[in-house]
Amino acid sequence: MIHFECDYACGAHPAVLKALVESNSEQHCGYSEDERCDIARAIIREQCACPEAAVHFVVGGTQANLLVVEAGLRSFEGVLCADTGHINVHETGAVEATGHKVLPLPSRDGKIAAHQVREAVLLHREDPSFEHIVRPAMVYISHPTEIGTLYTRQELTDLSETCHELGLTLFVDGARLGYGLAADPTVDLPFLSRVCDAFTIGGTKCGLLFGEAIVIPGEAYRDCFRYRIKQRGAMLAKGRLLGVQFEALMKDGLYVEASRTANDQAQRIKRAFVEKGFPLLCDTQANQIFLVLPNSAVEALQEKYVITYWGKVDEGHAAVRLVTSVCTPEADVQALLGHIAALPA
Amino acid sequence: MIHFECDYACGAHPAVLKALVESNSEQHCGYSEDERCDIARAIIREQCACPEAAVHFVVGGTQANLLVVEAGLRSFEGVLCADTGHINVHETGAVEATGHKVLPLPSRDGKIAAHQVREAVLLHREDPSFEHIVRPAMVYISHPTEIGTLYTRQELTDLSETCHELGLTLFVDGARLGYGLAADPTVDLPFLSRVCDAFTIGGTKCGLLFGEAIVIPGEAYRDCFRYRIKQRGAMLAKGRLLGVQFEALMKDGLYVEASRTANDQAQRIKRAFVEKGFPLLCDTQANQIFLVLPNSAVEALQEKYVITYWGKVDEGHAAVRLVTSVCTPEADVQALLGHIAALPA
Amino acid sequence: MIHFECDYACGAHPAVLKALVESNSEQHCGYSEDERCDIARAIIREQCACPEAAVHFVVGGTQANLLVVEAGLRSFEGVLCADTGHINVHETGAVEATGHKVLPLPSRDGKIAAHQVREAVLLHREDPSFEHIVRPAMVYISHPTEIGTLYTRQELTDLSETCHELGLTLFVDGARLGYGLAADPTVDLPFLSRVCDAFTIGGTKCGLLFGEAIVIPGEAYRDCFRYRIKQRGAMLAKGRLLGVQFEALMKDGLYVEASRTANDQAQRIKRAFVEKGFPLLCDTQANQIFLVLPNSAVEALQEKYVITYWGKVDEGHAAVRLVTSVCTPEADVQALLGHIAALPA
Amino acid sequence: MIHFECDYACGAHPAVLKALVESNSEQHCGYSEDERCDIARAIIREQCACPEAAVHFVVGGTQANLLVVEAGLRSFEGVLCADTGHINVHETGAVEATGHKVLPLPSRDGKIAAHQVREAVLLHREDPSFEHIVRPAMVYISHPTEIGTLYTRQELTDLSETCHELGLTLFVDGARLGYGLAADPTVDLPFLSRVCDAFTIGGTKCGLLFGEAIVIPGEAYRDCFRYRIKQRGAMLAKGRLLGVQFEALMKDGLYVEASRTANDQAQRIKRAFVEKGFPLLCDTQANQIFLVLPNSAVEALQEKYVITYWGKVDEGHAAVRLVTSVCTPEADVQALLGHIAALPA
Repeated sequence: MIHFECDYACGAHPAVLKALVESNSEQHCGYSEDERCDIARAIIREQCACPEAAVHFVVGGTQANLLVVEAGLRSFEGVLCADTGHINVHETGAVEATGHKVLPLPSRDGKIAAHQVREAVLLHREDPSFEHIVRPAMVYISHPTEIGTLYTRQELTDLSETCHELGLTLFVDGARLGYGLAADPTVDLPFLSRVCDAFTIGGTKCGLLFGEAIVIPGEAYRDCFRYRIKQRGAMLAKGRLLGVQFEALMKDGLYVEASRTANDQAQRIKRAFVEKGFPLLCDTQANQIFLVLPNSAVEALQEKYVITYWGKVDEGHAAVRLVTSVCTPEADVQALLGHIAALPA
Repeated sequence: MIHFECDYACGAHPAVLKALVESNSEQHCGYSEDERCDIARAIIREQCACPEAAVHFVVGGTQANLLVVEAGLRSFEGVLCADTGHINVHETGAVEATGHKVLPLPSRDGKIAAHQVREAVLLHREDPSFEHIVRPAMVYISHPTEIGTLYTRQELTDLSETCHELGLTLFVDGARLGYGLAADPTVDLPFLSRVCDAFTIGGTKCGLLFGEAIVIPGEAYRDCFRYRIKQRGAMLAKGRLLGVQFEALMKDGLYVEASRTANDQAQRIKRAFVEKGFPLLCDTQANQIFLVLPNSAVEALQEKYVITYWGKVDEGHAAVRLVTSVCTPEADVQALLGHIAALPA
Repeated sequence: MIHFECDYACGAHPAVLKALVESNSEQHCGYSEDERCDIARAIIREQCACPEAAVHFVVGGTQANLLVVEAGLRSFEGVLCADTGHINVHETGAVEATGHKVLPLPSRDGKIAAHQVREAVLLHREDPSFEHIVRPAMVYISHPTEIGTLYTRQELTDLSETCHELGLTLFVDGARLGYGLAADPTVDLPFLSRVCDAFTIGGTKCGLLFGEAIVIPGEAYRDCFRYRIKQRGAMLAKGRLLGVQFEALMKDGLYVEASRTANDQAQRIKRAFVEKGFPLLCDTQANQIFLVLPNSAVEALQEKYVITYWGKVDEGHAAVRLVTSVCTPEADVQALLGHIAALPA
Repeated sequence: MIHFECDYACGAHPAVLKALVESNSEQHCGYSEDERCDIARAIIREQCACPEAAVHFVVGGTQANLLVVEAGLRSFEGVLCADTGHINVHETGAVEATGHKVLPLPSRDGKIAAHQVREAVLLHREDPSFEHIVRPAMVYISHPTEIGTLYTRQELTDLSETCHELGLTLFVDGARLGYGLAADPTVDLPFLSRVCDAFTIGGTKCGLLFGEAIVIPGEAYRDCFRYRIKQRGAMLAKGRLLGVQFEALMKDGLYVEASRTANDQAQRIKRAFVEKGFPLLCDTQANQIFLVLPNSAVEALQEKYVITYWGKVDEGHAAVRLVTSVCTPEADVQALLGHIAALPA
């Protein structure tokens, strides 16, 4: 079977694997206090044009999310997010397990808008029972979102300004950030470093064996962050593995370049479906595509391809998701394109 | 610098690295539901002579500990352990962060005894205010312990019988289990599977890039365990990496064999120090050795070697720890032996 | 000012106060292990026709809710409730602070229906990523609801059967139960004891100085419940105060009888508004009434009465809540009725 | 039976009960935002000579403790206390249930000293693995202690200075503060307001039906404290009950005066035992006394009196605790004195 159901089906990008192999016999101190992590941190700070940023490496995205969220909230505070947000629906209540309520807002195309944040905060402030209600103190968004869409530079600017005007912080989950950076270069690392209080540079879904970089440009969340990493079980003993991988991924523009290739693959697949007359569930520009297909087409695809069943549309149709990644072989894409061309319209 | 301060300074054992490289372009579903994890689980179940054991893979030891402990306790229950136990002193309160009190008992050589467990449980039961006191419901021990000592088969049998007679469960943290299995073959995997409710097979300190296997032989802790893994951020997206590594480590007896080599290295180093007249802080049989050295000898060693400063003994002497691992080059050991021989007595 | 904004503006019903005064010099052991609590528990068990019920007394409703919810859930499990449910909106995230996600369902008239519970549970079960999603394990409803409506006997039966068929438990928050029992006698204590896994008999809003009785008819939540009470700070030292008050409130039918008087007061007030032509926000049968009034009428009322502003309806109108209680003086009601009659229509 | 086993066996001091009865028909808004609470807060601020102090009322001592502790700690921080401290041994892990580790220090006469705090903090700071160890950030002590002893003014000054020099906060649990104030007037409310970051004025054990006042003289813990009270289920709906009681207790010096009477009773009982030749377990000046008695004397006492069995001393002797309170009838004391006189020596 060929996998198009997610962006973590393969191993590492060859450059990343090579770096791991070549550094295997090096000896380093543990817990990401080594020189390899220092090098990776320096590269990230430079690409962010933010020399004072704190950069922490953890293994997985749920770890990164729960760490930043719990660092940014007092016990009675909660985090606003899209109702489709990963922390709200797909992390088994990881945020709640740290004691905090997730405060979902209705989303459109997987996104929330600055005015929704303002309304939620004012609703709380103006309620005479405000002390009986969880206090919104943070906004969590994903870029790209869970359904593959992108915030525009203006939307992010508005969210940032609204948050900071109201005393909230803004955290951007960049589990698939590479694909977003490649799809819309106006939202780049320096821009994110200016508008966010924290964001993640996702590695797992963008060519690493594993690894997420948490970037904290300013003062929020920063103090004693490593204690939190250890307490939540997120501190890797052989921490340099994260540094070695991120160095290989980030240097020489590989992160964006390899992501762009994956985006191109996804967009070619999208167009092939559209040209056959199959409608999109929603239009996306990065590495995830969402389609409505006849059940017969879904079944035909599933004989050879693993894809994600996204939900029933009607008796005869289903929504599906197809995903490419930094590691998707072009041959797999070609095979799929041929398969699509052969589907009955 | 040559590292003898811990067992996670290097990368992976060559056989493990080779398996990772060779499987890099394979495509698998995520979250350890793939065939490579299934193979590794089957090998472990077979070596445990426990076909019905549940086996879960996580990245790190703190994750494994907090997951098993929180799975085994109700909100008002606590876990008994040695005062030197890793969960009590070196995990930044990871267990408490799940809401549970760690209940330390005085240790001797890093170990606690069955009678201490009995006394603690009876003390609680017989107290008229028992409902005002955290209820002991679980025992956590490490084998080898945090100071390198080993429980005997009889000690473990006694702890197991006492726990089960009193309605407690027994969890053995095997972060360095390979070195223990190699040092005392009477405490083997089938034995642990009979006496424990859960134990871990440590990979990170025994030749993997990362990875701990949680083995649950019986019914305790078992139900819905994967939800817990996800909730605590411990579910690896590219989960097959854990399966690939554990398969390489466990098959053909590599785990114990490679650990034995490391034990031999440590014991040769120990003897070299002893022969020079330096006293042991406590005697150990596995891969960690604890010595009392004159400050001058510590400083001389530290010019070339990274070792762990374990504490001040008196004005002129310090306790230090030296550790070997599955990945320690024999050349490093030879160099160190030469260095020791040259130390002034 | 005369208070109609809530049902906790006054002190205790005279019979309750009398019992407290008369027992003031009695000496008892603490923590509700005394004879006065035993008597109250016996009365409640008898009125519930459930001799084996566990009955616990705590001071407040949020305590009762968080205790039952955390007793009924494992760490990765959540509680389904109406989006308007007290635990979802007015307890500052008390449930989340115990680590659990509240799973809100859209409500109609403050209520949720059995089919919604079934759909939510099946949606979770049939999702291939079910382990990444909080597992629904419990249903929380309020009777009367937060907006004063009542579940019918059939609706409760359906919820109970659906919960138990699907392996969930059902918890009914009876913070205002007296008013519900008085308004619809078909939903009585024996019925609740048959259909619920736990329910509360609210005292604070029904004539006590403070106090909620948690009734646990069956096995769910039962074991070691008193440890939980102590751990969450909900165990009253002079626990007999709860027993003394509940005895006075529950014996001789006072609980329902006094609540009925309050309902009658509220319904008379409701009719007076309706007769003046002011519309109801939603119709209720118990002690809370919700109206839409012109802003001028709201202002006129607020010169003399404290009422709850419930929200803006349009530029000229607002929704308000008026509440009576066991302790509302009839003279206050008469004064208000006169005031309403004098309002311009 | 006559109760001398604790200080919460009776109801309220007559003046407190009278105030409750007289205010029963008053109408107030809820949650301690009423004028009666404002009056009580003003009295306390004045007696503390600290006009800017925040004063919050909660029902019980465990609530007060867990609220202040969780307000004062970040997730990875812990609270130092005596190993005999109430939060460490008699609150069923209430602090741990908020996610924080209690860090016990060896106690002498129920007390810890400033130098112990300093050593613990420096031990943490100087440990290279400090990020793997819970960070001490707060000190909790009880005055009087759990075994009835008192900190001197100098000891408290030293603790305060050490805490503040090292960046920790100091919290004094005054569950029995009245007895302490009466026994040593040099440690008074203005002094406590200067040296502590928070302390409680215990009401439950000093003449109230229930109630603890949390006094926060400075900035630590202060912000948004009422959210925390609500979230932990500690906000009383009819909050004015706390104001009414505290006003009655605190005004005109009743708190200290009534406590002094109880101390005198306890000291007379102590002297009666000592004069009979029975040794003290430790000497105390307030309302708790600890004795070593022959088993026969214990049994003779227990025929008529409830006392606390504190532990076995040897085959023939036991340690016991006797406690008086603001509500202890002098007739009970006289009866007991007669009984003691009649005991065989």
